[in-house]
Amino acid sequence: MTEIVTFGEAMVRFAPPHFQRIEQARQFDIEIGGAELNTAVGLARLGRTAAWVSRLPDNALGRLVANRVCEAGVEPHVDFADDGRCGLYFLEFGAAPRASSILYDRKDSSIARVEPGAFDWPTIFQGAKWFHVTGITPALGENVAAATAEALAAARAAGLRTSMDLNYRSKLWSRETAGRTLAELLPGMDLLLASEPDADQLFGITGQDFAEVAERLVDRFGLTMVAGVRRQTPLVWRNTFGGIGYSVGHTFTTADYEVEIVDRLGAGDAFAAGVIHGILEGDFPRGLEIGAAMGALKHSIPGDLPWIAKDEVDELLKGQGLRIRR
Amino acid sequence: MTEIVTFGEAMVRFAPPHFQRIEQARQFDIEIGGAELNTAVGLARLGRTAAWVSRLPDNALGRLVANRVCEAGVEPHVDFADDGRCGLYFLEFGAAPRASSILYDRKDSSIARVEPGAFDWPTIFQGAKWFHVTGITPALGENVAAATAEALAAARAAGLRTSMDLNYRSKLWSRETAGRTLAELLPGMDLLLASEPDADQLFGITGQDFAEVAERLVDRFGLTMVAGVRRQTPLVWRNTFGGIGYSVGHTFTTADYEVEIVDRLGAGDAFAAGVIHGILEGDFPRGLEIGAAMGALKHSIPGDLPWIAKDEVDELLKGQGLRIRR
Amino acid sequence: MTEIVTFGEAMVRFAPPHFQRIEQARQFDIEIGGAELNTAVGLARLGRTAAWVSRLPDNALGRLVANRVCEAGVEPHVDFADDGRCGLYFLEFGAAPRASSILYDRKDSSIARVEPGAFDWPTIFQGAKWFHVTGITPALGENVAAATAEALAAARAAGLRTSMDLNYRSKLWSRETAGRTLAELLPGMDLLLASEPDADQLFGITGQDFAEVAERLVDRFGLTMVAGVRRQTPLVWRNTFGGIGYSVGHTFTTADYEVEIVDRLGAGDAFAAGVIHGILEGDFPRGLEIGAAMGALKHSIPGDLPWIAKDEVDELLKGQGLRIRR
Amino acid sequence: MTEIVTFGEAMVRFAPPHFQRIEQARQFDIEIGGAELNTAVGLARLGRTAAWVSRLPDNALGRLVANRVCEAGVEPHVDFADDGRCGLYFLEFGAAPRASSILYDRKDSSIARVEPGAFDWPTIFQGAKWFHVTGITPALGENVAAATAEALAAARAAGLRTSMDLNYRSKLWSRETAGRTLAELLPGMDLLLASEPDADQLFGITGQDFAEVAERLVDRFGLTMVAGVRRQTPLVWRNTFGGIGYSVGHTFTTADYEVEIVDRLGAGDAFAAGVIHGILEGDFPRGLEIGAAMGALKHSIPGDLPWIAKDEVDELLKGQGLRIRR
Amino acid sequence: MTEIVTFGEAMVRFAPPHFQRIEQARQFDIEIGGAELNTAVGLARLGRTAAWVSRLPDNALGRLVANRVCEAGVEPHVDFADDGRCGLYFLEFGAAPRASSILYDRKDSSIARVEPGAFDWPTIFQGAKWFHVTGITPALGENVAAATAEALAAARAAGLRTSMDLNYRSKLWSRETAGRTLAELLPGMDLLLASEPDADQLFGITGQDFAEVAERLVDRFGLTMVAGVRRQTPLVWRNTFGGIGYSVGHTFTTADYEVEIVDRLGAGDAFAAGVIHGILEGDFPRGLEIGAAMGALKHSIPGDLPWIAKDEVDELLKGQGLRIRR
Amino acid sequence: MTEIVTFGEAMVRFAPPHFQRIEQARQFDIEIGGAELNTAVGLARLGRTAAWVSRLPDNALGRLVANRVCEAGVEPHVDFADDGRCGLYFLEFGAAPRASSILYDRKDSSIARVEPGAFDWPTIFQGAKWFHVTGITPALGENVAAATAEALAAARAAGLRTSMDLNYRSKLWSRETAGRTLAELLPGMDLLLASEPDADQLFGITGQDFAEVAERLVDRFGLTMVAGVRRQTPLVWRNTFGGIGYSVGHTFTTADYEVEIVDRLGAGDAFAAGVIHGILEGDFPRGLEIGAAMGALKHSIPGDLPWIAKDEVDELLKGQGLRIRR
Repeated sequence: MTEIVTFGEAMVRFAPPHFQRIEQARQFDIEIGGAELNTAVGLARLGRTAAWVSRLPDNALGRLVANRVCEAGVEPHVDFADDGRCGLYFLEFGAAPRASSILYDRKDSSIARVEPGAFDWPTIFQGAKWFHVTGITPALGENVAAATAEALAAARAAGLRTSMDLNYRSKLWSRETAGRTLAELLPGMDLLLASEPDADQLFGITGQDFAEVAERLVDRFGLTMVAGVRRQTPLVWRNTFGGIGYSVGHTFTTADYEVEIVDRLGAGDAFAAGVIHGILEGDFPRGLEIGAAMGALKHSIPGDLPWIAKDEVDELLKGQGLRIRR
Repeated sequence: MTEIVTFGEAMVRFAPPHFQRIEQARQFDIEIGGAELNTAVGLARLGRTAAWVSRLPDNALGRLVANRVCEAGVEPHVDFADDGRCGLYFLEFGAAPRASSILYDRKDSSIARVEPGAFDWPTIFQGAKWFHVTGITPALGENVAAATAEALAAARAAGLRTSMDLNYRSKLWSRETAGRTLAELLPGMDLLLASEPDADQLFGITGQDFAEVAERLVDRFGLTMVAGVRRQTPLVWRNTFGGIGYSVGHTFTTADYEVEIVDRLGAGDAFAAGVIHGILEGDFPRGLEIGAAMGALKHSIPGDLPWIAKDEVDELLKGQGLRIRR
Repeated sequence: MTEIVTFGEAMVRFAPPHFQRIEQARQFDIEIGGAELNTAVGLARLGRTAAWVSRLPDNALGRLVANRVCEAGVEPHVDFADDGRCGLYFLEFGAAPRASSILYDRKDSSIARVEPGAFDWPTIFQGAKWFHVTGITPALGENVAAATAEALAAARAAGLRTSMDLNYRSKLWSRETAGRTLAELLPGMDLLLASEPDADQLFGITGQDFAEVAERLVDRFGLTMVAGVRRQTPLVWRNTFGGIGYSVGHTFTTADYEVEIVDRLGAGDAFAAGVIHGILEGDFPRGLEIGAAMGALKHSIPGDLPWIAKDEVDELLKGQGLRIRR
Repeated sequence: MTEIVTFGEAMVRFAPPHFQRIEQARQFDIEIGGAELNTAVGLARLGRTAAWVSRLPDNALGRLVANRVCEAGVEPHVDFADDGRCGLYFLEFGAAPRASSILYDRKDSSIARVEPGAFDWPTIFQGAKWFHVTGITPALGENVAAATAEALAAARAAGLRTSMDLNYRSKLWSRETAGRTLAELLPGMDLLLASEPDADQLFGITGQDFAEVAERLVDRFGLTMVAGVRRQTPLVWRNTFGGIGYSVGHTFTTADYEVEIVDRLGAGDAFAAGVIHGILEGDFPRGLEIGAAMGALKHSIPGDLPWIAKDEVDELLKGQGLRIRR
Repeated sequence: MTEIVTFGEAMVRFAPPHFQRIEQARQFDIEIGGAELNTAVGLARLGRTAAWVSRLPDNALGRLVANRVCEAGVEPHVDFADDGRCGLYFLEFGAAPRASSILYDRKDSSIARVEPGAFDWPTIFQGAKWFHVTGITPALGENVAAATAEALAAARAAGLRTSMDLNYRSKLWSRETAGRTLAELLPGMDLLLASEPDADQLFGITGQDFAEVAERLVDRFGLTMVAGVRRQTPLVWRNTFGGIGYSVGHTFTTADYEVEIVDRLGAGDAFAAGVIHGILEGDFPRGLEIGAAMGALKHSIPGDLPWIAKDEVDELLKGQGLRIRR
Repeated sequence: MTEIVTFGEAMVRFAPPHFQRIEQARQFDIEIGGAELNTAVGLARLGRTAAWVSRLPDNALGRLVANRVCEAGVEPHVDFADDGRCGLYFLEFGAAPRASSILYDRKDSSIARVEPGAFDWPTIFQGAKWFHVTGITPALGENVAAATAEALAAARAAGLRTSMDLNYRSKLWSRETAGRTLAELLPGMDLLLASEPDADQLFGITGQDFAEVAERLVDRFGLTMVAGVRRQTPLVWRNTFGGIGYSVGHTFTTADYEVEIVDRLGAGDAFAAGVIHGILEGDFPRGLEIGAAMGALKHSIPGDLPWIAKDEVDELLKGQGLRIRR
């Protein structure tokens, strides 16, 4: 019985140390990551109980993923499968003027073979309050999109609030398929996390600023809240990060944080965790503030998972400075 | 213009350090390996020019493999492809009573999509003396088996001597398919590397000892020489290793080496390199001696590739002891 | 609702890599370990649900321990405390003729301040079948001994079977105190894990062999089963390991395994896990066999925790050899 | 017979590599540090002979500390004790907006049990010129404060000049106790290193700028010189660092250095070393310049100890740029 | 048959990790580097075939260098010698205000003993288009200067274009010797890479800006093109980097890149590779642009060798931003 | 004022981790070592004060050596020179049937340029009891041999006892030069450490066993005691190690230890330390026992230096077993 349920893939991540290129590497550091898992971990770190539903191969790599999900405080609801493989991705850390880059090796993963009916959603959702998924999950295949639709329907039937992060991945599916599929999943979402480029590419929705785009998304899909990230990337090792949100005619903007970047993977997912946490406490603007703090702090932490303590978020929001804490 | 040509897959190998289990690992050491590549490297270390023909994805992992092939002194003859992925394998080092183990993740690799006609074999074989392949290459798919047959035919047409290491991998294909396919490729081989269990499983050929089995292989397939490895595994960190060969009614047995095992992957391939090298010098028994020394030394070297110097083989054959060399 | 409950301390373990002395070290590898936790992990690896009850400081070290308990598949039942510190220990790996050694820094740990009443044992034991503790827990202080007595009483009241591993630690308490305290805790244990030297030092019980000592322990304390480890230590990197047990007049001896030692910490605790698992399946001799296999395999795994797969135990019991598994 | 004597604790420092959180760490890098030791090392690096007086446990951790004191060129005057433990601290490196942080585990250290009379100060001070201590030493306990008073008295009796760095640590003692204790130790100090917040918290001394605060400290305690650090912390990886000093009506300000931060621990202690060195050469303003250069350079060096060469200080003071030196 | 031939020394490079000082190091990371080799690698990465001519000791260090030359895609034309040793250098990475620094240990290297006649230049140059060398090679000794002159003469005789990077190293030779020796080698160079300080120190040529200095170099030595690097070093971890060139009365200036510095060694050599590549495509200004991009990207890559993909250069020239590439 | 003085070279040692070949290495572990230094460290570990006299370059490598000499508890008496370089050596760890091997790069080291008169021996020897040197020091050059003779003469003049370990290194000098030079240094030695092959190669002295050879050495050179090591090398990771000694007609043989080998460098030097220590306590046979224990324990410790505690020697001599010490 957990408050939050998320559904998606997690991959094993391989990154050569110290800015090496993959092709010159002799060692890889191993982390795990996946958008929905990252958000579940963020919510667990904020004190909530969270479960992550997925499908993994029944081998050492699948167990590696599941072990580390547990380590991060999230309950794994994993179907260990005899078919499919474990999704992998390879990360190169960059330095200006070379951007960081990712090489995915996730085809034919076990979760890409999931079928509707694979999970007993009503049982999983017992006692839960919120269901979160991203646009990556339905991108894994039509069957996975159908399973996502099934999960969303079950969530709503069980009275859960729902959210989606668009997260359009052009390597996984075309704009047309993505736009059509997501348009079917979005109606009724309590919270949509979206960027302006994604709104444009997927739905042809544009506007003069985030608020206008968000309003049109709300209108088109009957959403309650839309949240987005504001990021500037003057360098690879230093960005600014903040959040913005729109709901029923109001726009909310958070503080912008200057971030020194150890690892920027999962910042958006940590932001989502903060927003959901705040909304559950009853306040969307507060959620945006927590989300921006979570996302900003995530940049300082190696790996995709937001190993952040709740009191660190509180202190950042209170404006504690950068002197060493003893 | 190289003396030796081999054809097969090479994979990126991931191994957690210091006997860790994969599922508890935080770091993997990166090597590359593939039976035919390993043998090509062994021949290069013995002073011969060697090329390795393969197909790799045109991405950072494919380049990593090709870079390290070059580093090891072998000329890569690689078709960099837009389709398929890079084969991977994960290795756990064991300690008695836990054996070492391998988890393969090689499905859908670029080379598994190779078709006959992909390589210009006559050009590749210009000036070469020997073509070597193992039973793993045709196991990658019917198309790859056909490409292997094409290569063998071209090699013989170009006057090269040919060899195969049976290397039956039950995870890649059934005994029936393997037996049928290999039976078509074997006739006329100058050298077959085979184990008694493989001869039994693939061709139902048994005998009271290696010589009898080898004789029946020779009879069945019209081979010239058959070589095999003799290994005892009382422990994981200590084995004995030697070679045995059969040709025209004679059986040759090498010394047995007591080996302390740093990494036993590729020992059989290093043995094959030594045998081929010796035969090219004109002497099968000498080839077996060099092969046994190469294979024994390989156990002391991390990675699949036999980073052995030619003079180390000579010294071992001369019986130099184990005191530190200054 | 877990099948097995254990109660004790876990410490953070620091070990310099590659046989370095602590005083020359520049890096420490970090693991966690604690006798009862190790056994809980062993039971989880064998497919059972297991919980570990403890008290940890509410800081990053306490969380490190709890995170890794979760990673290993055990449910932590932890009271995060504002007082006390995290127990630590420092391990030096040896090589003959230098034995491995441990430096403890566990004084004033949070669990050493636990008081009876700190845990709601009846709730914890709901649905459970077995409660396991070792002689280390009561050694942490009179208050902890009292809490242990409370837990044992509650376990029996809830119908659980109980076990203890004597594990006498002379640095924690005197033979007199230990003997007196443990003598009060032992009566009624279903399973005692004990060594002959401990029986002698704590209770003055000696005999001509394990069976005789075990019989006297059974007589003195009203036990059902007594199990022990048989180990020979001709070298630091190679031992033999097996198990022995006594119950109602019968002595059972397992196979002896030759073990190559990566890390021998926790072998006895893994043995205990196997014995308990077997008894729960209804068969003490089978438990001893599983325990011996678990303990033997543990030597091959870095860290105190037995990262062993159930099928590895089955294969070892079936006599699978030491060739590489592909 | 050394020029400089310092007295205090040194701890073993554990820091996870590459900005990891402690709770996700698998490895810690090991350094040693302690305010007075750091300053002694700085003075040794500047070419002076320096001794460090302390008490350490007679175990591997105590020896690790003493070994590395020797490595850094300082003479350890250590009482190896059977009681108490080795103080430890755990460091997390941060990145904006996450500050770096320290978790201390130093309670019950051997030096915290030191008693007046433990050291033969007159002998230790033979031939020495300067005695330095910080406010951390008396904070370790009333007995240690008494031993500090004893040392200061002996130093003055032997004609040494004396200095103290206030270094108020709120986790070790209250403002009241600290203020009262330090007020007894300060009178007659030749040099006080102090920050404005410490002056306020400990003695209620405030002013409109450093000079005013320093003047009041001089007046209150009969000091000769007061020095302080000027630091700005716009980011975690980049600060500015400079020095300021006050003596008999004059204020001296050094250049400010822009520092890229590898490790900012010990920067203040390196500053103190430079100031003392300059004063010993006869010139307080020169001492401040050397101190600022030492402190600035320290940020570029891993660990608490200032591994700086004297000529690097000279070159920095001469304004050598940041191009690579060949 | 390679397009580009370069001639010079490569050394093994030892660098302590993470900004450590050499004197506190316990581990060194191993790379190889040498100005002419670095440029050859840059050209290979841009898709050209490149050979590197050198002399190395016939031992494990010499082979290490040759292996990694192959790994980087350059053909080694190495005379493995029984005399001389392998040049080494030790690198300390700095952080403001501490500059990075290099300690050379290259005396008596095998290449320093090379004599004219050692290489069969006419054969080496068959089919080649360009010969590149730097001022470091003739600095290794009079014999090496003579061999360089021999190579340049042979290159021109074979119709190759030639280039030199002045690269004055004051530790290897005096300004007088260098100026006199290089003045003999320069006449007729198609491309000179030079800095204003080098022009001044070696030839007493100064001017109000790069163009004027370049024009005078052209006039004095009969050169076709002169190229140089523009670098600003406000910090150690962040510089700006761009290129400038002069040819027949025209000056060309590239964009300036803001670079975050992982490893700035070899940036000038990568610049040279880009310039030569562009000229070979027929366009000096394009060469400068490619050179500036290559040089800027090099700062982001560990080691001296420019592990840069051609498409990364194209994308940088097109202005792709710094967001992560998926 | 130290009890023991030794004189010789120490080199920086580079070894690739985990049995890698040098030519495939990406990282080297850094240690220091030198025969006389190793013995001095051994004596310091046994509780004696020891100084090491040498000459090192005044650069970061020279300081690295000196720092670590201090760390190991030995007082460095080092002349930091502007000429010469730091001796280096590269070590490959082997595994049967591949022996470990060393590549020296020590030519032109600073100590090889030392001249008689460089050290003020009478001052250095004040208060000392023993002077130790090995045959490696005079092998560094005629000048160093002269300085060695000077030191030996001064030592005897000052009443010190003297010892030499023959340590013939064929790469440094011929048998003839070595034999002639050492024959001049040996007369009057209190203790000679020698092997039978060295006695034969240097002086043509043979015998049917160690005792006979030792007796002849005693006769020829007027020695008091001769000690030697007994080692068997059935494998690379396991040897047996013991000591033997001869004095005035008596032969003494120690126990043989079975050793698991982490690092066998410096075992003979640790043996020498133990023998000298025992003799200083008044008893040659006891010295041999301590030496054998020191040498055996050394095999278990990474690096050349014998990081052994005195009580470990005592316990080994008492026969403590190989169970873990808690």
